[in-house]
Amino acid sequence: MSGAPPTAAIVVIGDEVLSGKVTDLNSPFLIRELYARGVKIVEVRVIADQVDGIAATVRELSLRVDHLFTTGGIGPTHDDVTLEAVAKAVSRPLAQSETIAARIRARHPEASLRMAMVPEGAQVELAGGGVVPVISVDNVYVLPGVPSLMRACFEKIGARFVGTPFVSRAIYLDAHETEFAEVLAGIQQAHREVAIGSYPRFDAAPYRVKVTVDGADAKAVAAAYEEIRAKMDPSWIVVDPGE
Amino acid sequence: MSGAPPTAAIVVIGDEVLSGKVTDLNSPFLIRELYARGVKIVEVRVIADQVDGIAATVRELSLRVDHLFTTGGIGPTHDDVTLEAVAKAVSRPLAQSETIAARIRARHPEASLRMAMVPEGAQVELAGGGVVPVISVDNVYVLPGVPSLMRACFEKIGARFVGTPFVSRAIYLDAHETEFAEVLAGIQQAHREVAIGSYPRFDAAPYRVKVTVDGADAKAVAAAYEEIRAKMDPSWIVVDPGE
Repeated sequence: MSGAPPTAAIVVIGDEVLSGKVTDLNSPFLIRELYARGVKIVEVRVIADQVDGIAATVRELSLRVDHLFTTGGIGPTHDDVTLEAVAKAVSRPLAQSETIAARIRARHPEASLRMAMVPEGAQVELAGGGVVPVISVDNVYVLPGVPSLMRACFEKIGARFVGTPFVSRAIYLDAHETEFAEVLAGIQQAHREVAIGSYPRFDAAPYRVKVTVDGADAKAVAAAYEEIRAKMDPSWIVVDPGE
Repeated sequence: MSGAPPTAAIVVIGDEVLSGKVTDLNSPFLIRELYARGVKIVEVRVIADQVDGIAATVRELSLRVDHLFTTGGIGPTHDDVTLEAVAKAVSRPLAQSETIAARIRARHPEASLRMAMVPEGAQVELAGGGVVPVISVDNVYVLPGVPSLMRACFEKIGARFVGTPFVSRAIYLDAHETEFAEVLAGIQQAHREVAIGSYPRFDAAPYRVKVTVDGADAKAVAAAYEEIRAKMDPSWIVVDPGE
């Protein structure tokens, strides 16, 4: 038996996402990568480039989860306020990272060292062939907003986040949810260690509802799955759902 | 001159999004539609199918924004707990909606009337040719999670959300952000009624940074935009960014 899985939350920082100029690709990527490693994502938030709002969100969520990831707002311009906000959230001053400062001096000698100011005591690692810093402090990982850079950073640190991979089963039904809702509720009540989901669709697919069973324990998932299969009308079950 | 724009937040409810089985298409759609109408989206949250978590999120955000939209969790199965949670959030009991109950009796006479239980006093309108209920209570709109149904619902109510459409300008630069970060910060300080954003990219595009100016007042946006253009090195400006 496995214990409770490690938990994570994701904070996407960027006015450009909230105004629809850019579609957030980072949280779907992080969700998939973390979930595949057995980490349970409990919440995703998309918030604006505002120091106080970011600080409050990071403080609240970092207390609730094992790992918190932020994306966006770490460049050198005035709208990049994530590091200042994270420092506030963890109640530390900003301090210059020598690792990042050396990188900036080597590449842009004329540039300000604003981007090198990180929460005091933060860990700085270089990803993407040594060009992108991954900054972490307490349980908060500060990742870039540009998807290719964010992925390079996650590649560097991903192996650290390890749970027992979740087990998932699905059964496809050609029936209305109303026809089996009560039976399914009873099965969920009897199998509290798994999560049973029911997802209808209203298009031309060969099934009307996908019922899923998810959990950390393979035996528990299998038991709930078998009970669903046994209690549904056999004529509803779609063997080849085309998914 | 326009006053402060109306504000909105979006709450996406669904374990299937947090486990990466489904990519949320609803919040990008709502962001685009609302922003185009001049509504400022202040936050998006993706949360699990849990009554207490949904209730707390809805309560908190509904107090902070003019309009709150939830998507998902309104079907007839045990994992559909949004209406119960919204009732809790607005401190009302659940009561049967005659509009929804009549629809269920006509189409699924054998089904339970669970889906007809809405927060007492909620407004129920039918969208999508009379088949999908749009449920609203106070400033909370409860929309379905299935994208086609959610869009049908928004089509019914969208005209209600009207602000002064935002004005947006962009200038494309072949330069590093570090080369103009300080100048741009000064311009932002001098033009507080607009939001200036700076978005780098690291691919083969003919520009390296897109600088945007956004605001509710066209004159203020134009003034900031012209100042940026005047203060950037003319050789940086990319006239045909290929966007």
